[in-house]
Amino acid sequence: MTLKPIDKRVVIELKEDIIEKNVGGIIIPDTAKEKPNIGVVVAVGTDEELQKIIKIGDRVIYAKYSGTEIEIDGKRYLIISKDDVLALIA
Amino acid sequence: MTLKPIDKRVVIELKEDIIEKNVGGIIIPDTAKEKPNIGVVVAVGTDEELQKIIKIGDRVIYAKYSGTEIEIDGKRYLIISKDDVLALIA
Amino acid sequence: MTLKPIDKRVVIELKEDIIEKNVGGIIIPDTAKEKPNIGVVVAVGTDEELQKIIKIGDRVIYAKYSGTEIEIDGKRYLIISKDDVLALIA
Amino acid sequence: MTLKPIDKRVVIELKEDIIEKNVGGIIIPDTAKEKPNIGVVVAVGTDEELQKIIKIGDRVIYAKYSGTEIEIDGKRYLIISKDDVLALIA
Amino acid sequence: MTLKPIDKRVVIELKEDIIEKNVGGIIIPDTAKEKPNIGVVVAVGTDEELQKIIKIGDRVIYAKYSGTEIEIDGKRYLIISKDDVLALIA
Amino acid sequence: MTLKPIDKRVVIELKEDIIEKNVGGIIIPDTAKEKPNIGVVVAVGTDEELQKIIKIGDRVIYAKYSGTEIEIDGKRYLIISKDDVLALIA
Amino acid sequence: MTLKPIDKRVVIELKEDIIEKNVGGIIIPDTAKEKPNIGVVVAVGTDEELQKIIKIGDRVIYAKYSGTEIEIDGKRYLIISKDDVLALIA
Repeated sequence: MTLKPIDKRVVIELKEDIIEKNVGGIIIPDTAKEKPNIGVVVAVGTDEELQKIIKIGDRVIYAKYSGTEIEIDGKRYLIISKDDVLALIA
Repeated sequence: MTLKPIDKRVVIELKEDIIEKNVGGIIIPDTAKEKPNIGVVVAVGTDEELQKIIKIGDRVIYAKYSGTEIEIDGKRYLIISKDDVLALIA
Repeated sequence: MTLKPIDKRVVIELKEDIIEKNVGGIIIPDTAKEKPNIGVVVAVGTDEELQKIIKIGDRVIYAKYSGTEIEIDGKRYLIISKDDVLALIA
Repeated sequence: MTLKPIDKRVVIELKEDIIEKNVGGIIIPDTAKEKPNIGVVVAVGTDEELQKIIKIGDRVIYAKYSGTEIEIDGKRYLIISKDDVLALIA
Repeated sequence: MTLKPIDKRVVIELKEDIIEKNVGGIIIPDTAKEKPNIGVVVAVGTDEELQKIIKIGDRVIYAKYSGTEIEIDGKRYLIISKDDVLALIA
Repeated sequence: MTLKPIDKRVVIELKEDIIEKNVGGIIIPDTAKEKPNIGVVVAVGTDEELQKIIKIGDRVIYAKYSGTEIEIDGKRYLIISKDDVLALIA
Repeated sequence: MTLKPIDKRVVIELKEDIIEKNVGGIIIPDTAKEKPNIGVVVAVGTDEELQKIIKIGDRVIYAKYSGTEIEIDGKRYLIISKDDVLALIA
């Protein structure tokens, strides 16, 4: 089963271990007003402009408290608007 | 009797058992700020752009607390704006 | 005496018995956040786009708490914006 | 002395007796959330689109609590935006 | 010393006696939600559309509580946006 | 060291004595809701439209409580958006 | 590891010592409503208009309380929208 986000939304898979191991050096300070989170893009919406910028497999930093969480087969996903994706991690 | 939603609205039928059986693996965590719901599209508005993206029969995740509920002949429907449809379930 | 709504407004006649008899099967649950109402369109505004979508005689579901009520010769009308008309009942 | 409203504004003369006698059948229920008022247009703003829709002499229903009241030579006027004019009475 | 308002602003001179003598018949009721004031335009902003509608010397009714007051050589002025100018007095 | 404001911003130098001596006649009443301030433009943003209207050396009245103050080498500056510049003093 | 900000965002490195030594003369008064901060741009978003105005290596003043802080390998960064960049320091 797959999710196909509408328009300018992306679906991000939230894996705690990916964050710990691959992006290990990143520490999000508690003092930051809007804490960023990190996830891996698993689906990109139908918007063409969006598809040029964000692709499946991209690791992204997104604004916390944004989007809608959903759990499928024990995996946690976030359906999030493009505007809440802050940066790609390259 | 059928409903014809105006512009960018869709009508979604809310069936508890469809959610349980077909999409069984989906668990919506209580901690999610904006809980998504799942329904089946039964009518699509007159907007052409909308009609390319969402079709009758599509199962969709929509943002909770959105739209207007109505009950016809014992079935529950939701008249919802396209912007509150988060993703299609394929 | 007739009302000619401006721009994207429509005038809806509110008849309790029409709702009861013709659309009898519709039950609006008390739990719905924004309860829809049903009326019959008696006048359509000057906006051309609006006139293609909504016509005199159409039965419509509109968002409750929207529009401005007025009573003429004992009949109750609602002057309502097109954006508060949710769906046509066909 | 005359008032020339700017852009999309109209000036409406508020005559209690006109309302009582000519439009006598209209009763505005106390339960209506936004009570409409009735007046006669005495000046129309410079906006061309507006001038096609509303003309001097038109009786109009406008949204209560809108516009700015002014009294000249004992007559009461309302300077009101077009968007607060709900319908013409024909 | 002169003021040159930016864009769609005008500068209005506020003279109590002009209001009393020339526009004597105007009474602004205390019950009006947004009391209008009257002044004489002494400078018009750079916006071309504005300059077609409002000219130096025009007496205008403006929405109270709008704009920024300034006093130069004992005269009181108001720097006000065009949108807060309700009507010209002709 | 110079500041180059972005887009539609200008940098204004705030000199108490300039205000006192050159613009001496201006008194800002305490009753004014939004007190204006006066400064001298020392840098203009990259926006072309802005550069036609506001130039280095212009004395301007700006809306109080707007912009961001910064002190360089003992001089006080304000980085302010064009929309908060009310008028030029000519 | 590098960050690639989306659209009109830039990534700013926050170095206390750069501020102290290079921009030493700048003092931000405590009375300023919106205190500016200073940083060095290390990444610029994909927006072409943005790339003409802000470049890697630019020292910028940005509005405090804006953007999202993140720490990588002991360095502090801010992912910030172009609209919160007030001025370049040249």
